[in-house]
Amino acid sequence: MSPVDNNRIQLGHGSGGKLTQELIESVFASRLNNPILARMDDAAIVELQGRLAITVDCHVVSPLFFPGGDIGRLSVTGTVNDLAMVGATALYLTAGFIIEEGFSVLDLERIIDSMSEAAMEAGIQIVAGDTKVVEKGAADGIFITTSGVGLIPAGIHISGSGARPGDAVIVSGSIGDHGVAILCQREGMNFETSLRSDCAPLGKLVREMLDASPRIRSLRDPTRGGLATTLNEIASASGVTIEIDEEKIPTKAEVRAACELTGLDPLVMANEGKLLAIVAVQDAERLVDTMRKNIHGKDAAIVGSVGHAEDGKTRVYIRTLLGSRRVLSMATGEQLPRIC
Amino acid sequence: MSPVDNNRIQLGHGSGGKLTQELIESVFASRLNNPILARMDDAAIVELQGRLAITVDCHVVSPLFFPGGDIGRLSVTGTVNDLAMVGATALYLTAGFIIEEGFSVLDLERIIDSMSEAAMEAGIQIVAGDTKVVEKGAADGIFITTSGVGLIPAGIHISGSGARPGDAVIVSGSIGDHGVAILCQREGMNFETSLRSDCAPLGKLVREMLDASPRIRSLRDPTRGGLATTLNEIASASGVTIEIDEEKIPTKAEVRAACELTGLDPLVMANEGKLLAIVAVQDAERLVDTMRKNIHGKDAAIVGSVGHAEDGKTRVYIRTLLGSRRVLSMATGEQLPRIC
Repeated sequence: MSPVDNNRIQLGHGSGGKLTQELIESVFASRLNNPILARMDDAAIVELQGRLAITVDCHVVSPLFFPGGDIGRLSVTGTVNDLAMVGATALYLTAGFIIEEGFSVLDLERIIDSMSEAAMEAGIQIVAGDTKVVEKGAADGIFITTSGVGLIPAGIHISGSGARPGDAVIVSGSIGDHGVAILCQREGMNFETSLRSDCAPLGKLVREMLDASPRIRSLRDPTRGGLATTLNEIASASGVTIEIDEEKIPTKAEVRAACELTGLDPLVMANEGKLLAIVAVQDAERLVDTMRKNIHGKDAAIVGSVGHAEDGKTRVYIRTLLGSRRVLSMATGEQLPRIC
Repeated sequence: MSPVDNNRIQLGHGSGGKLTQELIESVFASRLNNPILARMDDAAIVELQGRLAITVDCHVVSPLFFPGGDIGRLSVTGTVNDLAMVGATALYLTAGFIIEEGFSVLDLERIIDSMSEAAMEAGIQIVAGDTKVVEKGAADGIFITTSGVGLIPAGIHISGSGARPGDAVIVSGSIGDHGVAILCQREGMNFETSLRSDCAPLGKLVREMLDASPRIRSLRDPTRGGLATTLNEIASASGVTIEIDEEKIPTKAEVRAACELTGLDPLVMANEGKLLAIVAVQDAERLVDTMRKNIHGKDAAIVGSVGHAEDGKTRVYIRTLLGSRRVLSMATGEQLPRIC
């Protein structure tokens, strides 16, 4: 029986035998076709030379489809962005699918179409895959784990530990869009304007940024845990203090409204198409100008600065809208499980 | 609260915030320590040059712990072996963990210890990881997806499409051990001698084989779907017919007994530490001698030969113990879900 006959994933589709082959041919190969994947050996083979970046991300987002994206798009952009954050050009992606028995083949096809589209947008090739099927109730629909390989151009040294006192802190756009889009979808909250996830590949933006400034110290995409967590990670890895100005952080009205309703803080909400950059202060204005020319950086802004650690302690401070200055901690508990 | 305080994985351990950091430090980093992983940037950075092999495998095996291995060991050896099957030396591994809320931290520690041990045995470094936690009931314990990067030495060209008429077919040892070990564990079947999974990294065996013969055409590890499926894949990819001799295929008495009891065929049972090699017939005896010197090839045997396709059709035949000759098909349905 072909997958199309039944329209539901069966355990046999994960058996490694005939049904698996049919699923691969009818759903995957036709949508993700490239000469490397088409060899269908146990491993994909590529030619490369230089400094490689390697990364992995599991995607368990719920719901699978949301305004602005779906788990397929997210699984490509999430990994592409992790590569971009060390300055690497994304080249090759592998994808592992864990699917619950009974999952809709049509939904799987939509997801693979979306991965294919995102891969094209990001300029990455999906070169290897694996599919396992578990019994009904042993997983929630579909989980996708992607791993990426990219090439870092000579002379590029970007790291979370690179921030230095005096540097400027830049965000590429409005904060919390992805987290709030998922939250609204999940809770059935409706706003007048429909908020969408910002889910997007940032490789091109990063290349333009690296061309504009040789003094970018750190790049991070503030996904799970949001801007607050990412700032704390960089402060800690670099041994510095960071101070940001709440007023300067771009935040959409819908995001603020949803956060007020739910008591959540936009600064810990996930983003999937935004980045945080630490850059030498003399390059900051120029860098923001460059970023604003890219659709994914059009609302870029300088939001703070890096200072010395105080008594050996690294901290993040926020100057609030009310004018007070308080410590900004990383996210602690789990406010929104399965956001990505 | 640290993971050790509670001994159960909480949703917050997947939040990307403070609890995630504590889990990474207390469970992962201490066990998988290496300088590349220790940088803790969004992607790992390595230097490489040449033909790379890239592969991915999802692991959903149930039960998580079984005689001869566990999901941790399996997740390393499975990916290492896929790299070995294109002649690559395994170098770097990424691991994505999807964990069910409430999972035992002690079990997680055992699994990571086991991954660390298997990685050492295989000579591969675990350079990047990701952990997501889903609500109780949304996954079954833990799923691990590993992706591997390896380097293919100059002059090595191994592919499932390389088999030629006249070549010999070799298996590296007894067939069905992994599948039957899992089956017995799952069904509570007991045999006098305790059968163990063959779960092992085959990289060293493959390197020794490549040194012994420059005319190895195809290598495959017959995992899901077993020997029958792998033979059919190679026959189809190479456009040939393969005939094997049942009598010559090494099979343990316990495996035969369990298969007789359950009506399953050892030829479709999964293996996790065995390989199938297609080699020029003049090198076959020498290759088997070489393989037998390695613990993972000590029962290696020539089990068949490659012939021309018949009327354009590629087929696999088996000469049975009773002397008849029949078509051997690839596995069709799902006989043993979640075997790897």
